[in-house]
Amino acid sequence: MARKKASKKSATKKKSAPARPAASASAVAVAEPQVSGRGGEGRYEIDIALIGGGSRAWARMLFRDLALTPQLTGRIHLYDVDHAAAQRNVKVADDIFGHPDAVTRFEVKAVKDLGKALKGADFVVISIQPGPMQMFANDIDIPARYGILHAVGDTTGPAGISRALRAIPIFEHYAEQIAMHCPDAWVINYTNPMTLCTATLHRVAPGIKAFGCCHEVFGTQQRLARLLSERLEVAQPPRQQVRVEVSGVNHFTFVTEARWKDHDLLELLTDHLIARDDLFVDRTDFALESKKLGRWFSHCWLIALDFFVQFGALGAAGDRHLAEFVPWYLESEEILHRWGVVLTPSSYRLGMWEAADRKVAAQQKQKAAGDERAIPLKRSDEEGIEMILALLGDGPLLTNVNLPNEGQAPDLPRGAVVETNAAFTRGNLRPLVTNELPGMLSGLVRRVIDVQQVTLEAGLSRDLDTAFEALLADPLTRIPTDKAWDMFCEMVQVNAALMKEYTSEQT
Amino acid sequence: MARKKASKKSATKKKSAPARPAASASAVAVAEPQVSGRGGEGRYEIDIALIGGGSRAWARMLFRDLALTPQLTGRIHLYDVDHAAAQRNVKVADDIFGHPDAVTRFEVKAVKDLGKALKGADFVVISIQPGPMQMFANDIDIPARYGILHAVGDTTGPAGISRALRAIPIFEHYAEQIAMHCPDAWVINYTNPMTLCTATLHRVAPGIKAFGCCHEVFGTQQRLARLLSERLEVAQPPRQQVRVEVSGVNHFTFVTEARWKDHDLLELLTDHLIARDDLFVDRTDFALESKKLGRWFSHCWLIALDFFVQFGALGAAGDRHLAEFVPWYLESEEILHRWGVVLTPSSYRLGMWEAADRKVAAQQKQKAAGDERAIPLKRSDEEGIEMILALLGDGPLLTNVNLPNEGQAPDLPRGAVVETNAAFTRGNLRPLVTNELPGMLSGLVRRVIDVQQVTLEAGLSRDLDTAFEALLADPLTRIPTDKAWDMFCEMVQVNAALMKEYTSEQT
Amino acid sequence: MARKKASKKSATKKKSAPARPAASASAVAVAEPQVSGRGGEGRYEIDIALIGGGSRAWARMLFRDLALTPQLTGRIHLYDVDHAAAQRNVKVADDIFGHPDAVTRFEVKAVKDLGKALKGADFVVISIQPGPMQMFANDIDIPARYGILHAVGDTTGPAGISRALRAIPIFEHYAEQIAMHCPDAWVINYTNPMTLCTATLHRVAPGIKAFGCCHEVFGTQQRLARLLSERLEVAQPPRQQVRVEVSGVNHFTFVTEARWKDHDLLELLTDHLIARDDLFVDRTDFALESKKLGRWFSHCWLIALDFFVQFGALGAAGDRHLAEFVPWYLESEEILHRWGVVLTPSSYRLGMWEAADRKVAAQQKQKAAGDERAIPLKRSDEEGIEMILALLGDGPLLTNVNLPNEGQAPDLPRGAVVETNAAFTRGNLRPLVTNELPGMLSGLVRRVIDVQQVTLEAGLSRDLDTAFEALLADPLTRIPTDKAWDMFCEMVQVNAALMKEYTSEQT
Amino acid sequence: MARKKASKKSATKKKSAPARPAASASAVAVAEPQVSGRGGEGRYEIDIALIGGGSRAWARMLFRDLALTPQLTGRIHLYDVDHAAAQRNVKVADDIFGHPDAVTRFEVKAVKDLGKALKGADFVVISIQPGPMQMFANDIDIPARYGILHAVGDTTGPAGISRALRAIPIFEHYAEQIAMHCPDAWVINYTNPMTLCTATLHRVAPGIKAFGCCHEVFGTQQRLARLLSERLEVAQPPRQQVRVEVSGVNHFTFVTEARWKDHDLLELLTDHLIARDDLFVDRTDFALESKKLGRWFSHCWLIALDFFVQFGALGAAGDRHLAEFVPWYLESEEILHRWGVVLTPSSYRLGMWEAADRKVAAQQKQKAAGDERAIPLKRSDEEGIEMILALLGDGPLLTNVNLPNEGQAPDLPRGAVVETNAAFTRGNLRPLVTNELPGMLSGLVRRVIDVQQVTLEAGLSRDLDTAFEALLADPLTRIPTDKAWDMFCEMVQVNAALMKEYTSEQT
Repeated sequence: MARKKASKKSATKKKSAPARPAASASAVAVAEPQVSGRGGEGRYEIDIALIGGGSRAWARMLFRDLALTPQLTGRIHLYDVDHAAAQRNVKVADDIFGHPDAVTRFEVKAVKDLGKALKGADFVVISIQPGPMQMFANDIDIPARYGILHAVGDTTGPAGISRALRAIPIFEHYAEQIAMHCPDAWVINYTNPMTLCTATLHRVAPGIKAFGCCHEVFGTQQRLARLLSERLEVAQPPRQQVRVEVSGVNHFTFVTEARWKDHDLLELLTDHLIARDDLFVDRTDFALESKKLGRWFSHCWLIALDFFVQFGALGAAGDRHLAEFVPWYLESEEILHRWGVVLTPSSYRLGMWEAADRKVAAQQKQKAAGDERAIPLKRSDEEGIEMILALLGDGPLLTNVNLPNEGQAPDLPRGAVVETNAAFTRGNLRPLVTNELPGMLSGLVRRVIDVQQVTLEAGLSRDLDTAFEALLADPLTRIPTDKAWDMFCEMVQVNAALMKEYTSEQT
Repeated sequence: MARKKASKKSATKKKSAPARPAASASAVAVAEPQVSGRGGEGRYEIDIALIGGGSRAWARMLFRDLALTPQLTGRIHLYDVDHAAAQRNVKVADDIFGHPDAVTRFEVKAVKDLGKALKGADFVVISIQPGPMQMFANDIDIPARYGILHAVGDTTGPAGISRALRAIPIFEHYAEQIAMHCPDAWVINYTNPMTLCTATLHRVAPGIKAFGCCHEVFGTQQRLARLLSERLEVAQPPRQQVRVEVSGVNHFTFVTEARWKDHDLLELLTDHLIARDDLFVDRTDFALESKKLGRWFSHCWLIALDFFVQFGALGAAGDRHLAEFVPWYLESEEILHRWGVVLTPSSYRLGMWEAADRKVAAQQKQKAAGDERAIPLKRSDEEGIEMILALLGDGPLLTNVNLPNEGQAPDLPRGAVVETNAAFTRGNLRPLVTNELPGMLSGLVRRVIDVQQVTLEAGLSRDLDTAFEALLADPLTRIPTDKAWDMFCEMVQVNAALMKEYTSEQT
Repeated sequence: MARKKASKKSATKKKSAPARPAASASAVAVAEPQVSGRGGEGRYEIDIALIGGGSRAWARMLFRDLALTPQLTGRIHLYDVDHAAAQRNVKVADDIFGHPDAVTRFEVKAVKDLGKALKGADFVVISIQPGPMQMFANDIDIPARYGILHAVGDTTGPAGISRALRAIPIFEHYAEQIAMHCPDAWVINYTNPMTLCTATLHRVAPGIKAFGCCHEVFGTQQRLARLLSERLEVAQPPRQQVRVEVSGVNHFTFVTEARWKDHDLLELLTDHLIARDDLFVDRTDFALESKKLGRWFSHCWLIALDFFVQFGALGAAGDRHLAEFVPWYLESEEILHRWGVVLTPSSYRLGMWEAADRKVAAQQKQKAAGDERAIPLKRSDEEGIEMILALLGDGPLLTNVNLPNEGQAPDLPRGAVVETNAAFTRGNLRPLVTNELPGMLSGLVRRVIDVQQVTLEAGLSRDLDTAFEALLADPLTRIPTDKAWDMFCEMVQVNAALMKEYTSEQT
Repeated sequence: MARKKASKKSATKKKSAPARPAASASAVAVAEPQVSGRGGEGRYEIDIALIGGGSRAWARMLFRDLALTPQLTGRIHLYDVDHAAAQRNVKVADDIFGHPDAVTRFEVKAVKDLGKALKGADFVVISIQPGPMQMFANDIDIPARYGILHAVGDTTGPAGISRALRAIPIFEHYAEQIAMHCPDAWVINYTNPMTLCTATLHRVAPGIKAFGCCHEVFGTQQRLARLLSERLEVAQPPRQQVRVEVSGVNHFTFVTEARWKDHDLLELLTDHLIARDDLFVDRTDFALESKKLGRWFSHCWLIALDFFVQFGALGAAGDRHLAEFVPWYLESEEILHRWGVVLTPSSYRLGMWEAADRKVAAQQKQKAAGDERAIPLKRSDEEGIEMILALLGDGPLLTNVNLPNEGQAPDLPRGAVVETNAAFTRGNLRPLVTNELPGMLSGLVRRVIDVQQVTLEAGLSRDLDTAFEALLADPLTRIPTDKAWDMFCEMVQVNAALMKEYTSEQT
């Protein structure tokens, strides 16, 4: 009666029919035989490829976080276009894993060839700067001369589009290499513009197991934890206890529901807003003080609240980011200051690397002077390590993450990379379906997604004319089209080293 | 600068903008003050309303499961149209909670008024028979006379539609009462037809926190656990360790991905099918034996596998159920027997209640005779208790459940009740986005959903003409339209007591 | 064998299942017996209800157009909140139909009661001002004080939203009255904001046979006719010969394809743009001249072309309208002047009615003085009469029209009122499926639709908070939210007489 | 100020952005200079490529229709795999155009090379048999042995799928050749399975200007014309005066609205059904008579009406076709006979060509005998010529046609080829948005579309396993999967000559 004998080949084809990033955790396959008694006593042994391995901030934070994770051990391959920087970080890593407070050790190597770095990787972590800091500075400074201000400049607006046009070809290359060398690896992206870098990975290598991580939502959980502590007169709980439903795109994400135990925190927030009628006041003084002291990241949590008041969902990123997605707060520096936010100057960006180097040098000097704990081993607030552990089997972990929308954000376009909660379990990552955004806010997010999708097309096709369409449609662009074209041409020109393949059919 | 003072009213409105079943866990609110040191020592104190409180099977199973759950205590209100049956179950419950192996106790009462039973409930459990067993028997027997066979008859096909037409008005009433008396309660439905009963609750009371539970998928996990144990030569793991991605509608659900640790179980299954070419043989002998012995629920896991072979996803319900959603296996009893499945006869249904009563009587006799453990206190394989615990805060629990499709089944229509995995956390239930079904299978499920949705409209509008459209389009209906109308009229007639409101514009 | 006898009732229900505006042309039913030999010799006898029957411009144009249409005769009922104005127009109408060049005659009456005016109507024509001209002036002047300029102010931007908030309740009333008194009549709307007035009719009275007419696209056809005449060196054809595919929302509509005979006119336009590099020059001089002479409607067809250059589809409305849907052209009067467009001042609006009255007085004086042809009988460029004729049976007519999107604009949201081509045939109006807009432009139109849909909700629910969400999201709003709120409050206040039902939950 | 000079290249790119089959009527370009005074006196001169140029029925009908169309002249290239047949038709064509009643003349040539036949074509007409008549016979006979009956066997069911599997590769080749040799030609397909042949053209050559024509709907218009004539006691109008809204897929199409003048014909039909309670009676006698006389195409318009009674929309194809899309009428020959329909036997198909040849021979003999009018020159009921004329500029023509769904059938899947009304104008073909089908009927059509789409994938990928999935899901397949597989294997085997590229992963 057997109508057909399922052949090996056939069934393999069948089973792989579902095309979504499946949960084939090669990492675990590798790790498992080498785990002796996990569940307390043993360790997962994993291979990590760190792209942007020469980075001064993220790489070192990752080393510290790993050094404090007893469940993990293995190897880290550092890859960086600036190979010397990667090599410097090998030294930094060795110091960190040699730290007296370290509880585990990874073998760290700098690798010149990306393919070699990726080969055999269980996890790929990407944290790069798309181009030198001078380009970041240009992204901010050129639009400013045309009257378009950015509070940050790494995500959206003309600056974010410029950055994306540099980043997309780079991530296209990464995607191809990952597909070739470690298609089953989990890929964790920290690079901005988060949405478009992650989208490029998925577009170029369908089925890639990539997701994007950002800590902005954690800050919102923290603020809500503080708020509930004040209003309910209880000890401030850790932010992880504050459950938030988030939706939107990275840095333009919103809380539609927030709870701690059985308390409705958005209701609490409403009470707070009613009780505290001194919140929405002019914060120019605060801003000027921040500016004077170089506290570029300071803000008053006022714009996030303004979104809540106007649209019914709480902004779930810092005010500096939120302000960049709508035209209301950035018409002039004075207006921005009224909301307690300052413009991060390009000079700060230009000085960042040097500052980081100075810090390391100082620390190493201290260490050389005998202070073994000069480099403090402190866990960061990032969740990368928790995610890795959950994917290895220590889950489930439910947290927010950037992934292509397969249905998790019902009111946002399918396929666009969105930020919502997801469940990490052994070898598996599944987004959770979240609430729709309130009507008009959903529209504001969709217009951002529209611009992002056209930017993605522009980047992948290296087409400046399409990129300019996106730039015109960006909510921050309100200058005449001829002026905007002049601005765009200037931006393209200073990006030339990283945009050689781009062409325009305009003369 | 404060442009507007958020008034209490306004913010409340805003925050509640997201309309989906929010996570206002009144249960926990009630329970919390009364929990002394949960996390081992304490207990949640909850109120359960059990609709179908007189049921011989489910109610008693629930009592036993609760009696073995140390974390829970509280009150159970039994409601049943057959109030005497509910009263009988109070006695049964007291016996169970008084059992020497019981670790907790619930106060159990039979309540004549549904509203009173619901008032203050934290959880509502619904497990009823829509009509007397004679109606179930009719559902099976009338179509059989017209050449349409059902293996079960409680879900789909003309029998399932008939049952749905009785159940929908009943569930409409439940939905209204729940919305009035305990809108924040979690509602767990076990009643068949699962999809349409659950859909009625959500349609009539939007925002109701209702979901449907079914153990069929557990059986598939069990079989996969057994398979991997055999093929990998390891001890059989508990079914919970077998992670399955499921999608479809209740009883016509499919596994698109299955893993245990790092093993791809669908690949393993393929190997198994190749190795075991004796699987797809004529199972008439097995079926005849089952029939002789009255083993109505026996089957060979052959139809579930046939779906895997034909369409690439494994059937995730018993063969008896799967066979009813397509016209291939039920053309005659002989054909069904070839697949190792027997028709559950209506006589069995008619005898069920009596058998249950006999069993209880026997047990009580034994108990009276001094055998305190005559009613064995054994946990069922149902997950209702785990879900309750997770919703109270002991989660997260990731398991399969029936919910309106908000995006979790990307290839199935929005709004239709589908069965996929979901995450239960404190006061919160969120479906996880799952894989699309392979192409043609997705089509087969969508045609079932189409019939279900028209049946739902028919039930809610009490419109026989619309109901007949659904009946014609059901995959089991392959008789001429005039014969089908005759059959339908017969079925409506014997349902008359429960279908008084229905009308037709036909003479 | 007849399984069921189709009862009258049943079949009626069945046949009317398709809910869309069906083609029950009661008009024709009335007309037919009275038509003696249509097809040249005869006439359709129809009843027209003219809402806004006291209007100085549209009503009179309609009389003239009708007077020159030999195929039509019948009755016109004039309804106007200003009954005296309607009465004045009876006199004007009599003069027009008594004109020596008139070829037919309609009986014209002013009716105080809307229901009476509608009773028995075959066609309803709506052309009103939502509120006195002073309100129109306020719509323009208040935002201007906050830095938000409008070139027209009757469609979009804060002014258009203000106008819509007044118009929606009025059109809600019309819809209800039409549904009650003449549900089968064809309803032709000329009132702005076109999209939202037409959308209100369809939302309030589903199945209403209403559509919106606007002549802006005709102007684009005209310009293309002139262009082809120049470049191909042929006589300028009538605009009707220029076939255009249009899509978008009224006044923000785009040509995606244009042909005359076998000539691709967008290709021709491209050649023209290359050949004429003097087109995109600063037109401030032209604008200043227009301003001096009070030529408020003058423009250079430059913004329409700029859309073509930037996005690949030609703007199909006047530059004054197009400029209002994006933030690029209206940042200051100077910038607008560079594009050759002037702001229509509120003073012009305030003087319009008086000017129209003066004109009529002068003409009547001339007539009294014996000049019978003082009121020249000239057909307008509007297509209302052609549409009426096509619906009566003289079609088919293919032209552009505003209708809810059932699929005709595949890239725009279903249900939103869009402007595309449609086919008018006897008793039937069907949109034609048109091209998708090029990517980014599609996004720009969708963001306008998002704002419109939230405005519609706000108007129907009389909710100022929702209205303010729409206002913030309007592309012209780029001021801080607190300033925007102040502006909004001012606007609401001066609209008070027509917005009594609106409430806010803000203090 | 000109920000960028639109370059030729850029603008070309821009304008062509809308990807849908644009209206570049090269035909007209060719024709125009050669038209002397069209509008009565002149003629369009066109090139037609006729694929299936050796066909006995369609080719000759086309010649006759053309011979009677004074507005057209030009050249016809006949292409056929059976070149001899094409050559025979050259002779037949010459006779036809030489007929005394012919009013125009075409130059007709048989061409061996498809590319040459297509080169320069303004119109391509495709009317082929996918494989010899023996294969058609097999399509019917093999399933019959497994208990699956077809009334026709050329569209759906296992027979239709078998035919499609042969036709898809052939049409893939046509599509490629057309894209290469005459991408701007209009392509008119008459071949069955209509939906899948037309879909293949569009899938393989996106932008191809292809549409499918079928006369089944005309028959329904005819029947409605007869009905109204009887019931209204007026002369029977030509079918073109009966306006019908149709939706569905070819041969499974439904009338949702029908009007003649101001009469609602579906209401009339309802009255008719009530008045004539003798309609739904057993028609076995009629069927037996038809069978005896070999009147294979006879039917009683009963199944079309049954759909109207059951679902509220009138079947718009012959009963023989409608019966094949649902499992209700074809369970046995006896059941089918009750509905007045007979099975078209394979023997009829096998004899068709011979019969056609005999007819031609007889006619030519008569002609040789001096009877110049032996081959009667009569216009067929097909609309191909009207469509050609409308596309050349003699439109508009509104009629039903098969096209990919871009929005015209709002309830059916986008992209699937559907049959609705469309407007033919000069160089342009646009579908009109039609009514949704009543709920359950929409579901029945969607399940057919699902099967068609999987069949299309199977054909394009030459994958038998996918084809078998489609076959199982076809509504006519109700036999066990193992029997179905045996049947399928038999069918594939006898198709071998035309299915060489197909493979299965089953052994």
